[in-house]
Amino acid sequence: MADFTLYCFAQSGNAYKAALMLNVCRADWTPRFVDFFHGETNSEAFREMNAMAEVPVLVRGDKSWSQSGVILDYLAEYFQKFGWSNDEERREILRWLLFDNHKLTSYIATFRYLLQFTKNPEPKVLEFLRQRTKSALGVLEQQVGKSDYIVGDHPTIADISLCGYLFWPEEFETNWSDYANIQSWLNRIKSLPGWVHPYELMPGYPLEE
Amino acid sequence: MADFTLYCFAQSGNAYKAALMLNVCRADWTPRFVDFFHGETNSEAFREMNAMAEVPVLVRGDKSWSQSGVILDYLAEYFQKFGWSNDEERREILRWLLFDNHKLTSYIATFRYLLQFTKNPEPKVLEFLRQRTKSALGVLEQQVGKSDYIVGDHPTIADISLCGYLFWPEEFETNWSDYANIQSWLNRIKSLPGWVHPYELMPGYPLEE
Repeated sequence: MADFTLYCFAQSGNAYKAALMLNVCRADWTPRFVDFFHGETNSEAFREMNAMAEVPVLVRGDKSWSQSGVILDYLAEYFQKFGWSNDEERREILRWLLFDNHKLTSYIATFRYLLQFTKNPEPKVLEFLRQRTKSALGVLEQQVGKSDYIVGDHPTIADISLCGYLFWPEEFETNWSDYANIQSWLNRIKSLPGWVHPYELMPGYPLEE
Repeated sequence: MADFTLYCFAQSGNAYKAALMLNVCRADWTPRFVDFFHGETNSEAFREMNAMAEVPVLVRGDKSWSQSGVILDYLAEYFQKFGWSNDEERREILRWLLFDNHKLTSYIATFRYLLQFTKNPEPKVLEFLRQRTKSALGVLEQQVGKSDYIVGDHPTIADISLCGYLFWPEEFETNWSDYANIQSWLNRIKSLPGWVHPYELMPGYPLEE
């Protein structure tokens, strides 16, 4: 049995953050497919494991963790990789994890979800999310123009969190040729040993009709 | 001169999280009014201080911090109050800070903003945000039914973060009589020494036309 089990599915960028971290840390892990598109995260059994009714959930022995940012924090400590060397750096990483959750992933994930996985999404809602997506990408574009990675010259869990949805730009109407800094930064992440595209790293792609 | 200066304005629940923390920690602090409604957070001077172009920003000496969750983390350590006693508790607090940023504050703050501070908000966008707000409040209602505070029987920065927008329920079409657990939990927070309503704790209320 693997050391870690990750509850996930291929289309979840939040689950990908945890899966990518496990892979670049060369962890001994196995995915456990969650049938989100048929309601599994809302089932009673799943909610008992995570009241927030979301993937990812990471399990090791009799312990489990949810929220991608918490899982990244835990794994950074466990593997002593992609973490911080002092409290100041820890807080700078936390700052970008929070920005990701509040402003980047929150809008991009919802925008992409409506575009790709719902029928007849409301155009006014799409437009609202499109503008919020652009605004958040503008902040990211500026930041990754300052240094190779989000917090200085080495990759941390801030990078792994922020890139969670960004390997599917065409699924949220984005072309990285419009964001030169983000494009270079994503290429740096792709060159990390252990990097694998989300649709290949987690089960459930392509979606069955 | 006060030990701490907080860049804030009365209508910001995110700034309130930091202001409330300073107040319940009995910090020596002073607010610095940010004229958000006339674009100050988008000014070059402000963006130089915080590239994310948002309040709150906390300043102490020649150092500054942004993102409410980071400020709460820093103040918990500085005052040794409302924090954690071990890494497990730290991560459980972080889990709820992330939920707040991703699912609760993000939707409630935007819903309220469109309702209160914009003209002719788009009904379809309001409906989208209304449903997201209800869903997040449902998760919170369940959690604060389990124990007196978010993480056990004592208040932490998770409570201070999650309550940031919740003392204005009428501004986002909510009545706490529909959420008995949240109502009791908010009353417990209001009874903490140093609690003050956001419109009294920070400058800029009421808005000038």
